Amino acid sequence: MLREILIVLGIDPGLVITGFGVISVTGGNAYEYITSGVIETKNTTNLEQRLKYIYENVFRLIETHKPQEIAMEEVFINTNQKSSSKLIMGRTAAYLACCNFGYQVNEYAPNTVKKNITGNGHASKDQVHIMVQKIFCTSIDKNKTNDAIDAIAIALCHLFKKMSKNYF
Amino acid sequence: MLREILIVLGIDPGLVITGFGVISVTGGNAYEYITSGVIETKNTTNLEQRLKYIYENVFRLIETHKPQEIAMEEVFINTNQKSSSKLIMGRTAAYLACCNFGYQVNEYAPNTVKKNITGNGHASKDQVHIMVQKIFCTSIDKNKTNDAIDAIAIALCHLFKKMSKNYF
Repeated sequence: MLREILIVLGIDPGLVITGFGVISVTGGNAYEYITSGVIETKNTTNLEQRLKYIYENVFRLIETHKPQEIAMEEVFINTNQKSSSKLIMGRTAAYLACCNFGYQVNEYAPNTVKKNITGNGHASKDQVHIMVQKIFCTSIDKNKTNDAIDAIAIALCHLFKKMSKNYF
Repeated sequence: MLREILIVLGIDPGLVITGFGVISVTGGNAYEYITSGVIETKNTTNLEQRLKYIYENVFRLIETHKPQEIAMEEVFINTNQKSSSKLIMGRTAAYLACCNFGYQVNEYAPNTVKKNITGNGHASKDQVHIMVQKIFCTSIDKNKTNDAIDAIAIALCHLFKKMSKNYF
């Protein structure tokens, strides 16, 4: 029997660290953790090279894992305008790699992700990480940074919405 | 006798309208206006397609005119955070097309451009346009929007800096 598989790439964007997580679900709610990690750029490297690096790495992730859907965390402008501007530029580099493949980018606010993974929009990072591991019945490598696990949570939030599993 | 030619692409970025101007200078201060125009996207189109469109058109401009250098106007975050965020995303789409070709993007604040073209950092748009036409000894098509002429001014500001002609 053929089962349809839905692969989702989740992205927690940034200029310094872009987290990514690839997960899938097949019929029967079989969630599978595929991979996760971070794309890092150093602030000693010029902005042009950092943006190019993020773009190219997200592009490669899409080529490798061929997700059907992509989810990305929303970014809000804070009081530090300069750092906000850089953050949005880093995020746009990842966003544009998706656009250039023809994807729609599904955007989720941090609180929406937390609420959908833990039931509480103000949950701690630890709580989110515990729930991600429970749902995938796997202990995700402790060396994974928070950003990678956040990216898995973003992908999972999108899966829940797609499957309308009590999506908030 | 061979003369070195320096071609500069100026970009006045935005999500709705991205102005561009291509100019050159050869030895003996021979300024030449090559082309200018705008890349427009409609707000009825989704963000993904708008960013892709800007990216692809800037990419094509670079392929066509092969500038040695690129100059772009700086963007500041204003009180409307949502529109600022969109503006930065539009700008980053143009920026990234340059990065992916390996260019350094030379950034100039609006007042720096005005000061270098007219001598006054608070000059009116009309004043900037008059000076651009004077310097190129040409009457730039009246149908060109302000954004296209602003982009020429940005390119010219960069040329002045390169040539250290009383650059402010």
